[in-house]
Amino acid sequence: MPRSRHNASASLTDWGEDRLVAALTRDLPRGAEVLVGPGDDCAVIGRPRDARWQLLKTDVVIEGIHFLPEEDARRVGWKALCRAISDIAAMGGIPAHALITLAAPAKTSVDRVKALYAGLRKAARKYAVSIVGGETARSPGPLFLNIALTGWVERQQCVLRSGGRPGDLLYVTGRLGGSLAGKHLDFQPRIEEARWLVSHFKPRAMMDLSDGLASDLPRLAAASQCGYTVDEARLPLNPGRTTAQALSDGEDFELLFALSPRSASALEREWKKRFPRLPLTQIGHLIRHLTRPSGLALRAASGSLSRSARLASVIRHSHGYDHFAEC
Amino acid sequence: MPRSRHNASASLTDWGEDRLVAALTRDLPRGAEVLVGPGDDCAVIGRPRDARWQLLKTDVVIEGIHFLPEEDARRVGWKALCRAISDIAAMGGIPAHALITLAAPAKTSVDRVKALYAGLRKAARKYAVSIVGGETARSPGPLFLNIALTGWVERQQCVLRSGGRPGDLLYVTGRLGGSLAGKHLDFQPRIEEARWLVSHFKPRAMMDLSDGLASDLPRLAAASQCGYTVDEARLPLNPGRTTAQALSDGEDFELLFALSPRSASALEREWKKRFPRLPLTQIGHLIRHLTRPSGLALRAASGSLSRSARLASVIRHSHGYDHFAEC
Repeated sequence: MPRSRHNASASLTDWGEDRLVAALTRDLPRGAEVLVGPGDDCAVIGRPRDARWQLLKTDVVIEGIHFLPEEDARRVGWKALCRAISDIAAMGGIPAHALITLAAPAKTSVDRVKALYAGLRKAARKYAVSIVGGETARSPGPLFLNIALTGWVERQQCVLRSGGRPGDLLYVTGRLGGSLAGKHLDFQPRIEEARWLVSHFKPRAMMDLSDGLASDLPRLAAASQCGYTVDEARLPLNPGRTTAQALSDGEDFELLFALSPRSASALEREWKKRFPRLPLTQIGHLIRHLTRPSGLALRAASGSLSRSARLASVIRHSHGYDHFAEC
Repeated sequence: MPRSRHNASASLTDWGEDRLVAALTRDLPRGAEVLVGPGDDCAVIGRPRDARWQLLKTDVVIEGIHFLPEEDARRVGWKALCRAISDIAAMGGIPAHALITLAAPAKTSVDRVKALYAGLRKAARKYAVSIVGGETARSPGPLFLNIALTGWVERQQCVLRSGGRPGDLLYVTGRLGGSLAGKHLDFQPRIEEARWLVSHFKPRAMMDLSDGLASDLPRLAAASQCGYTVDEARLPLNPGRTTAQALSDGEDFELLFALSPRSASALEREWKKRFPRLPLTQIGHLIRHLTRPSGLALRAASGSLSRSARLASVIRHSHGYDHFAEC
């Protein structure tokens, strides 16, 4: 259980990630050109009427947390850069320039580091990212690989987490759950899909699924000052995975977005033509904000109270990935 | 001794930082808008005729390497951001937007993390940096604090490491050596001084001193395809510090720059008026490239062969801070 709010010796585990981030990001120095600061997938920089805005993102993978020491370093490098690219996709943007920080034990083999870079280069080439600099440092602990990534988005096509409205339909791309069995090292960030979406059926709110639907959907809903309903039976599961895994495993790196119901049937028809191999699933919708501001409120969807009640129970007891939770 | 070039099991220590970075940064994907990629203090992004260019930098501090666990977390936060600001200064630029990656053990106290952020905020306010986002993650090892920083510089005022010419005078700001006794946690990045320099006496080449003059000067000289001479007796030492410390301790975060000799007397006169409390010292000059492409060649300066010969010996045997050297 969390200790009291005023306990001076509270640890990060006691607080959990969302409370910590909320405390740290309060009252940060922020110039007028910062259109979106902490709390969305990327920061957005520019003037309100600029044709394009800049996107900024930083993301880290750590040995023992995000990958295991024995995993193929090329796949780890791929994953590291693609995680940040996925956040640019979630804003509707195009990635541009990456900076790499590598902290590694001095005994690390040169071959392993070269393989990490081979994976970074492969992802950079595929998504037209320039690797423009970085830093190497010695780590007295595990290997850390941090990516700082810039990108850009046309003002008209930028999608935040905060634009959803009650009644919007919630969609996810792809299939969820079980990513840690392997997909988390090989996933394809949804740049192409997101660019198509923002050009043809611009979502009102969007984010990428990194910590699991049960953690991430409440964040999108809260940013949009909405509640949400989800129909458990609709969740697109990876083969052999359970609903609980789809909700909580995280690292899916699929898109979650909210769309005006007016666009739904056209989107579903056109999506099938444009991306015939990638499922697009309507999993629920945004609703009016209920009593709990965290967005954790759940209501029956599609008249299926019993299923949603069971889902509420799952969500409450499997609340996704908290970076500081005890393992 | 380094193992053979082709030894598959070579470690980072065997290779050392400069060789590793050279290998990793070869053949990186790079778009046409990347004016300067890896190898300078910052990357430079833009079109050749743009009025302003963007600067990008990433920099990390790691517990046990760049600071000790018992050190005041506010000072650690200050240092982390100011290191990156110092690199923006070294290009003649203005810092703008920072992203913070914090990886910390789950047992870290919330108060310590808040103190880190208090230091980050203090530096951000002083240097007009907006903290626009970041990430928190759990570290199974030491605390790791990475800063990604953007900035900008007018095209006409951008200074690289590579513009020095034989005959240019070499200057350093401030005093060198002994930074690890405390200054490394409280240093002032030379933004104001660098901005004044690029407006009034634009250096031909510039960098900040992070790894020590004995490591950093050869990098500036090599980037400018020059050799260099240094007059040992001129080195501005911090009180109680030796020449060897001034050459090798690192973490001075002073500016090192190369200036046309035509501007020297005017610069020295005007500097004293503008920055009466901060020494500016001419320590040597760039010379024609000698046989060793690393820039390690040394020659007698100011007719003082014996002093320079001794300095050559010091430099050869105390070659600054290599991030992967055995400790």
